[in-house]
Amino acid sequence: MTQYDSDNIFAKILRGEIPAHRIYEDEATFVFMDIMPRADGHMLVIPKTPCRNMLDASPEQLAAVMATVQKISHAALEAFDAQGITLQQFNEAAGGQEVFHLHFHILPRRDGDALRPPGKMAEPETLVEHANKMRAVLGTQ
Amino acid sequence: MTQYDSDNIFAKILRGEIPAHRIYEDEATFVFMDIMPRADGHMLVIPKTPCRNMLDASPEQLAAVMATVQKISHAALEAFDAQGITLQQFNEAAGGQEVFHLHFHILPRRDGDALRPPGKMAEPETLVEHANKMRAVLGTQ
Repeated sequence: MTQYDSDNIFAKILRGEIPAHRIYEDEATFVFMDIMPRADGHMLVIPKTPCRNMLDASPEQLAAVMATVQKISHAALEAFDAQGITLQQFNEAAGGQEVFHLHFHILPRRDGDALRPPGKMAEPETLVEHANKMRAVLGTQ
Repeated sequence: MTQYDSDNIFAKILRGEIPAHRIYEDEATFVFMDIMPRADGHMLVIPKTPCRNMLDASPEQLAAVMATVQKISHAALEAFDAQGITLQQFNEAAGGQEVFHLHFHILPRRDGDALRPPGKMAEPETLVEHANKMRAVLGTQ
């Protein structure tokens, strides 16, 4: 498998070189809005330490990411008045991966709402509004 | 959230009450073929202990399941000559969940192959063939 490339955009977000709609962070993980949301409140959970995807992640990275996925999913049910959560995680280009830093997609789902097609950028004000809903539930800044 | 119902079909598979195309098991997890595969080698990883989905899973259940997901994903790349893996995990009906015992979908992906639409049963002999490919790589029976 190809090695980790620290020029990927999530590594740049972690280094503060490019902005993101930040929702939550702890010692090991970081959560921000997906800018091409397939559902309202579509977020990404990433480890702060480098790994390309699930295939090369350490047990510690997977444990930290899953704990945050669970915490953020519960908050998302409340923030977006959702009844379910869909998780997606893509490994290597053939598996659907586009940014090569491990990330889990959290998709809040409401009864009867289909996922939107991929690839459409959200309005920045929509992302700010959704990020604020999450921060209000989590009590984060 | 609704409580765990031990009459779900994965609980019945774990108890040996209904058959499954078994791939692998360890102390904490069990892996078998999805009978409606969206890609060749579509498998499910479940914990042996009860939980409804990711939302109520314990850290130990999530850690055990993710370790098996990683192990099985590596084997699947080899068994199915795949270049990527897509993970999906559904929580509650609105999130796409149909069987209410935590499960991760492992979808081996080959360059250029789209996922097949959901809901179509595979031929039993195809599932046997694919299960045998996995067992050959894993050295399981």
